[in-house]
Amino acid sequence: MKQAVIIVAGGKGERMQSDIPKQFLEVAGKPILMHTIERFLVFDENILIVLVLPVDQIILWDELCKKYSFEVSYKVTTGGATRFESVKNGLKLIEPGCIVGIHDGVRPLVSADTIERCYMVAEKTGNAIPVIEIPESLRQLNVGESMTAERSAFRLVQTPQVFRSEFIIDAYQQEYLPEFTDDATVLESMGHTIQLVEGNPENIKITGPVDLKIAEALLG
Amino acid sequence: MKQAVIIVAGGKGERMQSDIPKQFLEVAGKPILMHTIERFLVFDENILIVLVLPVDQIILWDELCKKYSFEVSYKVTTGGATRFESVKNGLKLIEPGCIVGIHDGVRPLVSADTIERCYMVAEKTGNAIPVIEIPESLRQLNVGESMTAERSAFRLVQTPQVFRSEFIIDAYQQEYLPEFTDDATVLESMGHTIQLVEGNPENIKITGPVDLKIAEALLG
Repeated sequence: MKQAVIIVAGGKGERMQSDIPKQFLEVAGKPILMHTIERFLVFDENILIVLVLPVDQIILWDELCKKYSFEVSYKVTTGGATRFESVKNGLKLIEPGCIVGIHDGVRPLVSADTIERCYMVAEKTGNAIPVIEIPESLRQLNVGESMTAERSAFRLVQTPQVFRSEFIIDAYQQEYLPEFTDDATVLESMGHTIQLVEGNPENIKITGPVDLKIAEALLG
Repeated sequence: MKQAVIIVAGGKGERMQSDIPKQFLEVAGKPILMHTIERFLVFDENILIVLVLPVDQIILWDELCKKYSFEVSYKVTTGGATRFESVKNGLKLIEPGCIVGIHDGVRPLVSADTIERCYMVAEKTGNAIPVIEIPESLRQLNVGESMTAERSAFRLVQTPQVFRSEFIIDAYQQEYLPEFTDDATVLESMGHTIQLVEGNPENIKITGPVDLKIAEALLG
């Protein structure tokens, strides 16, 4: 089945104390977003790549592609005011009948195994999202108190979240609801059961300066 | 009030594919455990340090201290078969009437601010543990299914977990129970309310090769 990935790169540089949007910051020799894209090309050199970028970043991205001689075939579309809108824009470029992943542009450390597990299970079952065990003790907050929670009953959710395209296109026709915290919850609200597969612990979302140092260490 | 810290270093090297116990692996120029100890000395140069080490690692530790000219004053005691037993052994060297932290030997990235917040609040209230927000979406498992969980209602728990010494010495007189997942839960079972203070996200527990690379990047 034809495979596609929507890479959502809507970030600004604020938490990085930088004017450069965080997905364009250089790590291990090139912008983060290029590492992220390459992970999917290693998985499937013919994968359809849809980049969702804020409208005011598209020229900068083109310049970066020239500067780094990044010659990769992709489609690009503009982001909306929210992540929900951005994904919806990306889905307009996706056909029914394929398997589509939705991935954060600032997760360049996703492993080939994680990507493969997600696409394989999604093709069979309709969807798959990567999760990892919680590495620390967990407490639940409760009006001025907290209690220990059984960490083995919880999982941390990563991306790519992968779907049969007709299901997720359909799900994104809904009005936005605050409980849509990720793409899986959008699909879930249509009555689908979400399939969990194993992610990889180093598949962090780069949001601050510490994450940047970590990514440099692991990609470098 | 007099301050103390019990540093529990019971690990072996198994998950590191190494014969060297993980707390002795070299990161940024010296064994992890030395970095960890130094963090507490920066906080309070007169803090009483109690190291809990497996009996068969004490000679190796002495050799490492010589090799790295690590001249620090501390007491050492031997670990038990479980972490609960190890902490209990460490507490035998602690007097009532002080503030005592219990810290993982493989958490060299605890910040000075985290340590200070914990000891300050524990002195006022009797206890304090550092927690951080959950950086990803969260799902709860449920017999063959999973559902989204409100991540803002949960916190990840770190160390040092800090206590008025008489309270935690008393709590450790109990028989071990499986629900004792950390020192806070041991105290909590005596009816104390646990105080949460802000930890620091980079205060990871070094348990595998990826963590080691991260620590090298952040300590180096």
